[in-house]
Amino acid sequence: MDYLNSRSSWLERANKLKPQLKHWTVSAKSIVKCIASESSWQKTEIKVLDSAATLKSKLYKTGDCFILDFGESLVGHVRIKLRPEGRNDSPLRLRVTAAEMPYEVSADFNKYNGSLSRSWLQDEVVNIDILPCSYDFPRRYSLRYLKVEILAAAGQIAFNEITVIAEAAEEVLPESPARLSEINKKIDQVALRTLRNCMQDVFEDGPKRDRRLWLGDLRLQAKANMQSFCQHELVERSILLMAAATDDDGRVPACIYTEPDLRHGNDLIDYALLFSDVVDDYVSATSNLKLGKELFPLVCRQFELFRPNLGDDGLVDEEITGGFIDWAQLNKQTAMQGVYIYSLKAAARLAVRLGFIDISDSLKTEADKLSFALKEHKYDKRKKIILSGPENEISYAGQVWPILAGVFPEDEACDILNSIESIPNAIVPQTPYMYHHLVEAYFYAGMESRAYDLIERYWGGMIARGADTFWEVFNPADEFLSPYRDALINSACHAWSCTPIYFFRNQ
Amino acid sequence: MDYLNSRSSWLERANKLKPQLKHWTVSAKSIVKCIASESSWQKTEIKVLDSAATLKSKLYKTGDCFILDFGESLVGHVRIKLRPEGRNDSPLRLRVTAAEMPYEVSADFNKYNGSLSRSWLQDEVVNIDILPCSYDFPRRYSLRYLKVEILAAAGQIAFNEITVIAEAAEEVLPESPARLSEINKKIDQVALRTLRNCMQDVFEDGPKRDRRLWLGDLRLQAKANMQSFCQHELVERSILLMAAATDDDGRVPACIYTEPDLRHGNDLIDYALLFSDVVDDYVSATSNLKLGKELFPLVCRQFELFRPNLGDDGLVDEEITGGFIDWAQLNKQTAMQGVYIYSLKAAARLAVRLGFIDISDSLKTEADKLSFALKEHKYDKRKKIILSGPENEISYAGQVWPILAGVFPEDEACDILNSIESIPNAIVPQTPYMYHHLVEAYFYAGMESRAYDLIERYWGGMIARGADTFWEVFNPADEFLSPYRDALINSACHAWSCTPIYFFRNQ
Repeated sequence: MDYLNSRSSWLERANKLKPQLKHWTVSAKSIVKCIASESSWQKTEIKVLDSAATLKSKLYKTGDCFILDFGESLVGHVRIKLRPEGRNDSPLRLRVTAAEMPYEVSADFNKYNGSLSRSWLQDEVVNIDILPCSYDFPRRYSLRYLKVEILAAAGQIAFNEITVIAEAAEEVLPESPARLSEINKKIDQVALRTLRNCMQDVFEDGPKRDRRLWLGDLRLQAKANMQSFCQHELVERSILLMAAATDDDGRVPACIYTEPDLRHGNDLIDYALLFSDVVDDYVSATSNLKLGKELFPLVCRQFELFRPNLGDDGLVDEEITGGFIDWAQLNKQTAMQGVYIYSLKAAARLAVRLGFIDISDSLKTEADKLSFALKEHKYDKRKKIILSGPENEISYAGQVWPILAGVFPEDEACDILNSIESIPNAIVPQTPYMYHHLVEAYFYAGMESRAYDLIERYWGGMIARGADTFWEVFNPADEFLSPYRDALINSACHAWSCTPIYFFRNQ
Repeated sequence: MDYLNSRSSWLERANKLKPQLKHWTVSAKSIVKCIASESSWQKTEIKVLDSAATLKSKLYKTGDCFILDFGESLVGHVRIKLRPEGRNDSPLRLRVTAAEMPYEVSADFNKYNGSLSRSWLQDEVVNIDILPCSYDFPRRYSLRYLKVEILAAAGQIAFNEITVIAEAAEEVLPESPARLSEINKKIDQVALRTLRNCMQDVFEDGPKRDRRLWLGDLRLQAKANMQSFCQHELVERSILLMAAATDDDGRVPACIYTEPDLRHGNDLIDYALLFSDVVDDYVSATSNLKLGKELFPLVCRQFELFRPNLGDDGLVDEEITGGFIDWAQLNKQTAMQGVYIYSLKAAARLAVRLGFIDISDSLKTEADKLSFALKEHKYDKRKKIILSGPENEISYAGQVWPILAGVFPEDEACDILNSIESIPNAIVPQTPYMYHHLVEAYFYAGMESRAYDLIERYWGGMIARGADTFWEVFNPADEFLSPYRDALINSACHAWSCTPIYFFRNQ
């Protein structure tokens, strides 16, 4: 694994590609209040009280509180310009709470009871000694709403201006394709904002939380970016960072930490396999064969690391663990079989681009063997359904990944996707990540109207519920669903939800 | 009042004299805990648990809390060096509480119920996104103790180092005079630390609160400074700032705000009169006659502004208000009469230095006339006691100021100070500020041992109760006494308590 010696040079090159973030100033739009409402998403309705332009003429005192709506979800730093009125002989003590969602800005964070650290919630308590002043909060927030609580003030306080100094690697959202319907144009713009807000020093999964580069999210972000912002350098940087964080065994991480120093984060076996697809997409978009050749051994190493999970029958272990696939509780055998085949085929395409024809052929041969095994052992030809694991479990994920892997021709894929709809207990997708793959499977199967319908229902469903960036978690039937036991910690601007951009331009 | 045109030039010169603050690093000394204890001052005992050198090997998690003792009261910024152990995928949320007193560091600030703003209490809640790191808290604290509460951490956290980057216009405390007793040497060093910690951009009254230049405190600080640090430029700067903040009526403020721009704060008529003493002390110490001449009209203007308070009988109004004198509830007639005479005589001395002999004579004549009136109308010659106001109230303040004003010869002053001791309901001093003037009166009256005894009892009494800087408020019989209804807000390092420095070197 001589290529592992390249890690320091990959890191060096990644550092040189660090983007100059763009900064722009956004003023608060409205002063709002939150109202408990059964008919609103997460039981919280935002009601506009006044234009934020009136803020400078309002006076606040100890115990007062107000909420601002910036009119758009943003990532950046909050700046407040403070003017004391009357007595001004003591510091000003403020609590600020930045929030992405109406429910979040109205919640009591002390009641947070999730499984992730409460420190991701965006509130601070500060004392500002000298007034008047312009005060910049040090922490970067992802927010649309800002709650300001005046915990202690000597006299009255006016907020002359409250702005967000927004930051991202891109500022302006590209235009949506003219041919799109109005609702799809809306979906596209929200998707573009989602992607933009995640485009920071790296492609982050979510700018509120975890603020990290995840390989699975990167793959989808890169696909969307290639159709819109075309920030190829940020993709290259992200790929190089992933490669540089490879462990000594040659395993590409599922996620990395870049600050204060590069660190290998979690491992997920499906994400690692899909590294081949990320690199192939990049080489295809940029013709950077040199980088492709450098990284090709690393791509292949992921397959080597995965192969012990395969049995002599050409099937992935029945009880395989260590992959993500989706948050749904499900047996991951056939989904992982699909991911592996899909990834082998991406590597085979990459090998062709790089001129490694023999390797490409051998990868394809392996893919074909595994496809055959899947169809032979885990496919009910009569019912047109794929069965996963020892209990022959039926899940969307278990159909979708083999379909995307090209195990079935288009018409049979269509049959499978129709079949599963009539199975009452089939395990449905839980995440936008899995919904992305379902949409992609519909397109593969020639079911375009089903694909668009799902985009409109699922992504459009978030917009109908107030989203102007797409969420990490969305189940219309369960508004407080959270994989972390508390919806407060959910990210409302999440990379893996941005892919309508890709579908609207690629199909 | 042409001299008022000089205000902008005074400000300009004051700005040029802004001191380069010294910075030095102080490591925490001990990890301590607070124990409720009936026998300890403010019911709080500090118990050492471990050396702070062991901190780096201790691991803390969400919900943990520890308290550090820096071994010395300091003013500056807290720096923490953080090292995560184990899981490190989330920000660290901390509350830090900086405190001057054991009671303060152990208290629940949510229960604070004082009349001054809660924002003076020194606690913050911050989120630190990237670990490991060195984190500097932005606010300047006055502290000896630091409580750190780990509100949320991903894994375990080690505090490799916690330091205070101390700051003041001076760092090193001068040596105490060799002739002093051991207890007086201790008192002297504590007084020097008190003064040093208040020597910032200006002479502050207290570095925790109010962080402002008060004329009454400046007068005592300047006297102590002239005997110790000899930072004449800081005195000159402070005098120039006071003069520059004079209002259009020619009134010197009792206090000023210097940030973000110079502002005239409260007015107190005794402080304004004593401006003469401050300028005279400064000219006497530096021979800067030029500045003395510039400011002399302003000194005299304070007398003009005061004179409407005088009756034809040569007495200050019976019910005069607007002066400070002390926090005790008392009639201020004779104390103010004393302050006025004292200030006239200081101005007369200054006039002599400046060569304004005629003016000096006329100031002395006025002082004599008022002294005569006091003795004639408000002095019980038989009982050797001064009676204040319409009720002929008897207070220490009412004796002390006429004595300091030289209304009585030494032996009679001694009689008066003895007399008052036997009067059961005489109003006693409440503040170190008033105790300072009582000690000075003892020295004036030749009662040296009484003066030293009081220093040892009062200032030594604070040390016996754990002080390493002298407090704003100290009454041995009332440990939670506060002029602000809550002792939490009291300042434990307060300029007006630093004058043992002066007595130990001037007498």
